[in-house]
Amino acid sequence: MKRIAVMTSGGDSPGMNAAIRAVVRYGIKSGLEVYGIKRGYAGLLDEDIEPMTFASVGGIMEKGGTILRTSRCPEFVRKETRAEAAKILKKHGIEGLVVIGGEGSLHGAMFLEEEQKVPVVGLPGTIDNDIAMTDMSIGVDTCLNTVVDAIQKLKDTASSHERAFIVEVMGRSSGYIATVSGLVTGAEAVIIPEVPVNYEELANKLLEERERGKINCIVVVAEGAASAYTVARHLEHRIGYETRITILGHIQRGGSPTAFDRLLASRMGVAAVDALLRGESGVMTALQGGKIVTVKLDEVLKEKKRLDMELVKLAGMLS
Amino acid sequence: MKRIAVMTSGGDSPGMNAAIRAVVRYGIKSGLEVYGIKRGYAGLLDEDIEPMTFASVGGIMEKGGTILRTSRCPEFVRKETRAEAAKILKKHGIEGLVVIGGEGSLHGAMFLEEEQKVPVVGLPGTIDNDIAMTDMSIGVDTCLNTVVDAIQKLKDTASSHERAFIVEVMGRSSGYIATVSGLVTGAEAVIIPEVPVNYEELANKLLEERERGKINCIVVVAEGAASAYTVARHLEHRIGYETRITILGHIQRGGSPTAFDRLLASRMGVAAVDALLRGESGVMTALQGGKIVTVKLDEVLKEKKRLDMELVKLAGMLS
Amino acid sequence: MKRIAVMTSGGDSPGMNAAIRAVVRYGIKSGLEVYGIKRGYAGLLDEDIEPMTFASVGGIMEKGGTILRTSRCPEFVRKETRAEAAKILKKHGIEGLVVIGGEGSLHGAMFLEEEQKVPVVGLPGTIDNDIAMTDMSIGVDTCLNTVVDAIQKLKDTASSHERAFIVEVMGRSSGYIATVSGLVTGAEAVIIPEVPVNYEELANKLLEERERGKINCIVVVAEGAASAYTVARHLEHRIGYETRITILGHIQRGGSPTAFDRLLASRMGVAAVDALLRGESGVMTALQGGKIVTVKLDEVLKEKKRLDMELVKLAGMLS
Amino acid sequence: MKRIAVMTSGGDSPGMNAAIRAVVRYGIKSGLEVYGIKRGYAGLLDEDIEPMTFASVGGIMEKGGTILRTSRCPEFVRKETRAEAAKILKKHGIEGLVVIGGEGSLHGAMFLEEEQKVPVVGLPGTIDNDIAMTDMSIGVDTCLNTVVDAIQKLKDTASSHERAFIVEVMGRSSGYIATVSGLVTGAEAVIIPEVPVNYEELANKLLEERERGKINCIVVVAEGAASAYTVARHLEHRIGYETRITILGHIQRGGSPTAFDRLLASRMGVAAVDALLRGESGVMTALQGGKIVTVKLDEVLKEKKRLDMELVKLAGMLS
Repeated sequence: MKRIAVMTSGGDSPGMNAAIRAVVRYGIKSGLEVYGIKRGYAGLLDEDIEPMTFASVGGIMEKGGTILRTSRCPEFVRKETRAEAAKILKKHGIEGLVVIGGEGSLHGAMFLEEEQKVPVVGLPGTIDNDIAMTDMSIGVDTCLNTVVDAIQKLKDTASSHERAFIVEVMGRSSGYIATVSGLVTGAEAVIIPEVPVNYEELANKLLEERERGKINCIVVVAEGAASAYTVARHLEHRIGYETRITILGHIQRGGSPTAFDRLLASRMGVAAVDALLRGESGVMTALQGGKIVTVKLDEVLKEKKRLDMELVKLAGMLS
Repeated sequence: MKRIAVMTSGGDSPGMNAAIRAVVRYGIKSGLEVYGIKRGYAGLLDEDIEPMTFASVGGIMEKGGTILRTSRCPEFVRKETRAEAAKILKKHGIEGLVVIGGEGSLHGAMFLEEEQKVPVVGLPGTIDNDIAMTDMSIGVDTCLNTVVDAIQKLKDTASSHERAFIVEVMGRSSGYIATVSGLVTGAEAVIIPEVPVNYEELANKLLEERERGKINCIVVVAEGAASAYTVARHLEHRIGYETRITILGHIQRGGSPTAFDRLLASRMGVAAVDALLRGESGVMTALQGGKIVTVKLDEVLKEKKRLDMELVKLAGMLS
Repeated sequence: MKRIAVMTSGGDSPGMNAAIRAVVRYGIKSGLEVYGIKRGYAGLLDEDIEPMTFASVGGIMEKGGTILRTSRCPEFVRKETRAEAAKILKKHGIEGLVVIGGEGSLHGAMFLEEEQKVPVVGLPGTIDNDIAMTDMSIGVDTCLNTVVDAIQKLKDTASSHERAFIVEVMGRSSGYIATVSGLVTGAEAVIIPEVPVNYEELANKLLEERERGKINCIVVVAEGAASAYTVARHLEHRIGYETRITILGHIQRGGSPTAFDRLLASRMGVAAVDALLRGESGVMTALQGGKIVTVKLDEVLKEKKRLDMELVKLAGMLS
Repeated sequence: MKRIAVMTSGGDSPGMNAAIRAVVRYGIKSGLEVYGIKRGYAGLLDEDIEPMTFASVGGIMEKGGTILRTSRCPEFVRKETRAEAAKILKKHGIEGLVVIGGEGSLHGAMFLEEEQKVPVVGLPGTIDNDIAMTDMSIGVDTCLNTVVDAIQKLKDTASSHERAFIVEVMGRSSGYIATVSGLVTGAEAVIIPEVPVNYEELANKLLEERERGKINCIVVVAEGAASAYTVARHLEHRIGYETRITILGHIQRGGSPTAFDRLLASRMGVAAVDALLRGESGVMTALQGGKIVTVKLDEVLKEKKRLDMELVKLAGMLS
């Protein structure tokens, strides 16, 4: 193996740059040429590919987003498109590909490997923590801290007033961000896709707590469960006091990555290059019990990452 | 004068605690007894009043919100209610009142002084910067930095994607927060109550910038001008790419106050006590050209604070 | 078991309050009475003990330090002192003790259990990450992020100038904080107790990098390896340009805990109560491969936590 | 006037990039060509000069440091060197020069104008706030907030222990940073160049406060008054408990600039171009009473900026 490439694909997540840096620098130190593919699969199809150097990834680790940029590429679901992509990689002499992204992007990587025999290693990069077989994905820890900071600011003002605050956070199919951020900020309630919500019960709980003298009232809702507006509408007439809404949106994807995400991304980037050099393919790097391992992409993508329900219980118990 | 009281009223803003601390500690050092009134005018009517000590305001300066809590008190528009409030103050031997809050709260303070002859000094506390005759109100600087941090995080992800991001910030009648935060983050556009928006023109501007290679696209909108959803709806079909929404909400009121707000609040707290001791009443402390002065409350409340249109021009020119 | 107590001891670390909160709230929900012992073993000997309630731990999770305060208690090395402590616990009807602290504090806990048969569970709380058999201690993640933020600020100015910056961080016997913070900020060199430093070689490395065009130069040194001044003295005449020094000191112990530390502390607090209820004693809660388990205190304290030398290698390879 | 240049010189300060951006973009919009001179006067002498574009200053406003880099240039004290510099500017067709920096850099600018008749406008850029005739310099507000954050972290741990913490901050000839940061964090004492320190008295004050139950003890010292080690040595034996030291160093120069500094720098950058276009020279932009004005460089440099002793008094009174 003489030449590999790295790309980021799908939604960006903080730490992707640290992963790119690790792939490039460790690749070069391992005797490889490393290329960067811009804008994910779309850029690959446009042959938007350029050589990376030790210097070209200097000073990027601390930045949110991805210097390679990213995009969604719906046409990549077609087999012909993937064949075209494989041809382009071959044309550029690229013998191994590192793909950093979420579920959709890893699916693309899996097919590229299975059908087109392109040696591929995936890195789980998503703030949702919805990728199976890895304890954490790159970006989750930073996202959590961003959400926690935001809720903490709400608490300042919440304890000055008699109001309920509804905070909508990311998580289309996973309640991880909502659950953990609610747990570690002592939010009064968490609404997530994994657990059906009963607004009657929730309103009663809030009213009871209010009666016991609690004046803060913060409800964290994962976008996949309901919108903040829906929650507000359901609660307001039941609890009899005003609600206020915060929708964090893409702020949750940004920010300088935490130490945890930079370390995770660096270790995974190195592990991806090592895997390619060992001849592994169709795998994803994963954090399991503190160690970086590789797992089969097809197994990862068959499985649904389940939320640890102990966390949900804990959140309820301690708030 | 032997005994004074301090309260916070209306929406809270970061720095109110620093102001309370300064009133209490400087009051005590000046030989006064200082009382705290809880929950603004509502707490005053409930006689929720307690003596403050040097120690009771220890460790509060760095906290958002207000340890005295706050509330809106619609019944305070009635003259009889204010007469009742004056009676309660008299009953508790309170000869001077410091009110920290926004326009509505200062109106209450003015009437209390004019009708009931209660010696009153107001402090401008609001994140909107919509109080006339003072360059800055307590809380504005912290709010600005919170908004800037949030937009900066959006920029990370915005430059990875091809999307427009709409950020809704506070400012019911004033575009100050939107304008300055847009200016200092290089946002592509700012929509404020002071300037009518032309969506056609705005969309064209965004499209032109995109053509010139700019991939970031952030629009900051003051809640008083439009909702983020309205802006998104107007732009999406015109610009032809997706938009994403962030509504910061009450996060903008929270957070540990900046050095500027702590200093401003401390100086104003001291100035308020000095004013009462000098026999001034019906005044507000104000920052004018770097100095803390007192201005007549009725003049403050007659005037509408105007946004410096140079800032709007500057934002347009530099982005 | 009807009544337990919780204390923090030794150096404080961010997240201790989240652990206290979890012990108190989960203890109460489990039907126990929970007492707080102030100022560690010293406060225990002074019978500075008070009942805790659900409300008394409200709003503390986000705070650095420890609401129970802490102290070092050198006289606790004497057996008679520990016997006295056990008597006091008995007198107050305390049948189980949760001790949150570092190595010294856990030693005290172990002896209290072995000699005096007090049921004890320890929680590893230290920023140094020097406690064996647990992947992370409470406070390490927050400390790391504080150090990373500081180094990142240095990089801003470092890249504007031609200077070397020496940053002294905590770690008396462990180079964990120095190594990981150096790794994730791309520091040019890391000096730690585990690896002997050769200033001649180090200076040559820095000179070579300078020649290759690198203008940043940041060296992170663990206090246990050398002082920043020593490093500066050794480097300055060899590299021929000026150095500047930063000593972070106890800033590294402070700050609002990260999401990770709050979660870890909450889980460990719950696990400690569960262990006591199960009749376990002389154990410490530990994070092993993502799970919270209990391990024998005497085994923990016999073993020296070793720094993962892969991290050291990684830091060298990627910078 | 067809072509101007901008440079940063001396110690960097956060906000310099925002100033560069404003000069470049507003210059271009005003019909000028704008060049950037690298590494201050040293780069000018090396003809390290390049054209700047609207795009070349994109995404820099939020960064600490200066993209033009900076240096000290001792040989610029010689008249012949300055004549050489003027010749180089002429050779490159540069008809106006904007210099962003502290006192030394502005001196260079003044001589360049007086002797060599180069049209020059200075911008005050320094974290020390030691430049006369302007209320604030670019970088002061960011530095203050960095120091305040650091001290706030110390307070977390300080209130858990019985120790005194000495924090050394920047300020060679000015106690501004030390005074204001001490004031807004409630530090127990501040040691500054403007006021002689009496360690005996200081120790007594700390002991008294300790007796009254205060457990925090933080002393902020400006580097120009004493080193943290000196203060510790003087205090330790007098107060009888341990001290711990923090030396923030160049961290104080870094960090993403605050909203205030970005706004100040943007306004000053625009004002500098306007001044050149109006034919003004030998002036500095200054913030006076909320307005940006120009003042004569020779008057600025004759005067010593005095610390407002009201702030010192306030700090003493409120802590």
